[in-house]
Amino acid sequence: MIKTDILIIGAGPTGLFAVFEAGLLKLKCHLIDALAQPGGQCTEIYPKKPIYDIPAFPEVLAGDLVTNLMEQIKPFEPGFTLGERAETIEKQDDGSFIVTTNRGTQHHAPIVAIAGGLGSFEPRKPPLENIAKFEDKGVEYIIKNPEIYREKRIVIAGGGDSALDWAIYLANVAGEVVLVHRRNEFRGALDSVEKVAELKAQGRIQLITPAEVTALNGTDKLEGITIQKKDEDPINHPCDHFIPLFGLAPKLGPIANWGLEIEKNAIVVNNSLDYQTNIPGIYAIGDVNTYPGKLKLILCGFHEATLMCQSAYQRINPGKKNVLKYTTVSGISGFDGSKKEAPKAVVKSIN
Amino acid sequence: MIKTDILIIGAGPTGLFAVFEAGLLKLKCHLIDALAQPGGQCTEIYPKKPIYDIPAFPEVLAGDLVTNLMEQIKPFEPGFTLGERAETIEKQDDGSFIVTTNRGTQHHAPIVAIAGGLGSFEPRKPPLENIAKFEDKGVEYIIKNPEIYREKRIVIAGGGDSALDWAIYLANVAGEVVLVHRRNEFRGALDSVEKVAELKAQGRIQLITPAEVTALNGTDKLEGITIQKKDEDPINHPCDHFIPLFGLAPKLGPIANWGLEIEKNAIVVNNSLDYQTNIPGIYAIGDVNTYPGKLKLILCGFHEATLMCQSAYQRINPGKKNVLKYTTVSGISGFDGSKKEAPKAVVKSIN
Ligand SMILES: Cc1cc2nc3c(=O)[nH]c(=O)nc-3n(C[C@H](O)[C@H](O)[C@H](O)COP(=O)(O)OP(=O)(O)OC[C@H]3O[C@@H](n4cnc5c(N)ncnc54)[C@H](O)[C@@H]3O)c2cc1C
Ligand SMILES: Cc1cc2nc3c(=O)[nH]c(=O)nc-3n(C[C@H](O)[C@H](O)[C@H](O)COP(=O)(O)OP(=O)(O)OC[C@H]3O[C@@H](n4cnc5c(N)ncnc54)[C@H](O)[C@@H]3O)c2cc1C
Repeated sequence: MIKTDILIIGAGPTGLFAVFEAGLLKLKCHLIDALAQPGGQCTEIYPKKPIYDIPAFPEVLAGDLVTNLMEQIKPFEPGFTLGERAETIEKQDDGSFIVTTNRGTQHHAPIVAIAGGLGSFEPRKPPLENIAKFEDKGVEYIIKNPEIYREKRIVIAGGGDSALDWAIYLANVAGEVVLVHRRNEFRGALDSVEKVAELKAQGRIQLITPAEVTALNGTDKLEGITIQKKDEDPINHPCDHFIPLFGLAPKLGPIANWGLEIEKNAIVVNNSLDYQTNIPGIYAIGDVNTYPGKLKLILCGFHEATLMCQSAYQRINPGKKNVLKYTTVSGISGFDGSKKEAPKAVVKSIN
Repeated sequence: MIKTDILIIGAGPTGLFAVFEAGLLKLKCHLIDALAQPGGQCTEIYPKKPIYDIPAFPEVLAGDLVTNLMEQIKPFEPGFTLGERAETIEKQDDGSFIVTTNRGTQHHAPIVAIAGGLGSFEPRKPPLENIAKFEDKGVEYIIKNPEIYREKRIVIAGGGDSALDWAIYLANVAGEVVLVHRRNEFRGALDSVEKVAELKAQGRIQLITPAEVTALNGTDKLEGITIQKKDEDPINHPCDHFIPLFGLAPKLGPIANWGLEIEKNAIVVNNSLDYQTNIPGIYAIGDVNTYPGKLKLILCGFHEATLMCQSAYQRINPGKKNVLKYTTVSGISGFDGSKKEAPKAVVKSIN
């Protein structure tokens, strides 16, 4: 059982910044995310695109924003349960909560902050009848650890940035990389498309287009797939892994059944006082919440996370008065023993 | 008469970021600030100190934060009335407002956003009986244009960073620089203290400590001052300018008499819906406002400015529906004709 002060569901920009604000109040955080890496929409959907409305960044790539946030929260040593979806919540007699993921990992905390954005990112699966049977037995929708593909024969399906980028990456790792796409045209960053063309010319990536994977074959685990190239006979292609990368779509999912007040797929919070839900001790911050005037913007998530942490502090330390301290004045004391503070002015006579 | 869409009182971080959010909605802004330069507390009080809780900046100097904000709002060409204090407000028959400064500059706008922080920064004045008579006639509390001191004989009083930094700067400009301080010890950045010591050794700054200025002399304009060094007879020291730099203290000031609901020196806004005050069309954002859960933090001012602009847009364009657009998706179109946008993905076949 993982224990923490604030359990954050969703490691998007809002959830990540909450770790920082909690840390200033000496509260520890643990984050759960369905994705294999932190960053939410920024990392999953548009890591290489510039954002222009993050205050004091005339321009910042979404991926760099997440890198900066990770650096900023490092002193507060957040825990992560990645690649798992928060599935159920149970309120304990003492008012604390136990949250369990789809893989059975249990988390216990007095405060739960839902920073679930548009929902947990779930892969779009190809409609292949026996695909569930091969999940984790040769079929993966998300690449968590590329090392498991070393010297293996893999087939990637898809025509977007993920398919292109992973095909390029795995060309150096796997024994054989086949990229299947139902069109001849790929949609992605120009340099990725060109790199794949180059690797194809070198024989390091095999391209099969326009084509679709129509069947998965194997007994206990995946042994091969059937590929149907347009206007040709289907062929059986032996392989160890099939990785369909058709994008991830967010689904509010299990959280919708936690007894929270929901309006248009978002969690209703009290009128932006502290972003608490109808269940005391459960907060909703960032894209996932709604209140009059709500804007689904990153900078709003930062503000909401900040106010939420103050309220969480009060719940965890009832009656204790917390005086807001400026970081410039008090500095930052990390849980890892690190300390950052502004250089002090000197008092010195001139003779 | 200066005309604009949103008149912002206070050019601190909150007021500056409001220009950006208004610009995204095609609304123009003009800012009034009592200080000679934008940035509010960040520039006036701690420009060289690091802030640690600006989201996605593990560390940023307050002065750099302001520089970045100025860069970010540049495409939206804000107007500035600097070094003047907003003094009176008059509601017009059409619901718009005219705001007049202490120097008589008039501003006309349908929306007024008060981003006045802790108040307008007013210089702490030394208690010299006839000082008002010499204001702008040889006595200045804020240095707006250092060029007026070229080849002049000046006396600076004070022992902090401002006094040190301006003494150093003006040593290259003025004909004669005298620095008077009531202690031998100066309080400031180490390199400033050392630089003054060096300039003193070179005879380019004259230091008189521990001493106080006890009288101002002159008929129509300042001709000299009386300096009283501890345990010595007062001396008359001829000079053209006397610049007491004893720091600035914020005062809510005239805004307190504008008919706005005030609580503990702050303007009450509706429960963080859109940060509107009791007078429709007047908003209060950043440190200057109060509502349940309010935190006087820069990142909160950013959020408040953003929601305020959406509401202002509705007032200016009644009935017009504004769909929130992501900057990443729509890019930024400046009023200066500039355009920034994310590179588009290519659609390209690989043969
Ligand atoms: C193309 C695009 C461009 C954008 N441009 C801008 C812009 O210019 N400016 C701007 O401010 N915003 C922009 N946005 C919106 C911005 O990305 C979101 O506001 C922001 O990501 C919200 O952050 P968040 O942390 O609240 O949620 P998210 O980033 O959505 O993160 C939520 C995370 O929670 C996880 N999660 C949800 N439920 C569960 C569960 N049950 N178990 C485990 N994990 C779960 C998800 O997997 C996800 O990783 C853009 C969005 C897109 C798609
Ligand atoms: C030493 C110190 C350290 C700090 N550290 C941090 C930190 O680490 N993190 C953080 O988030 N915050 C910190 N703060 C607080 C932060 O600086 C403020 O929250 C922020 O400056 C508020 O911005 P603002 O734009 O609302 O107001 P301000 O920065 O106060 O700007 C308001 C401006 O309005 C002007 N004004 C007011 N009334 C009038 C008028 N009638 N006419 C003309 N002009 C007027 C003033 O001259 C001023 O320039 C710190 C503050 C100090 C003093």
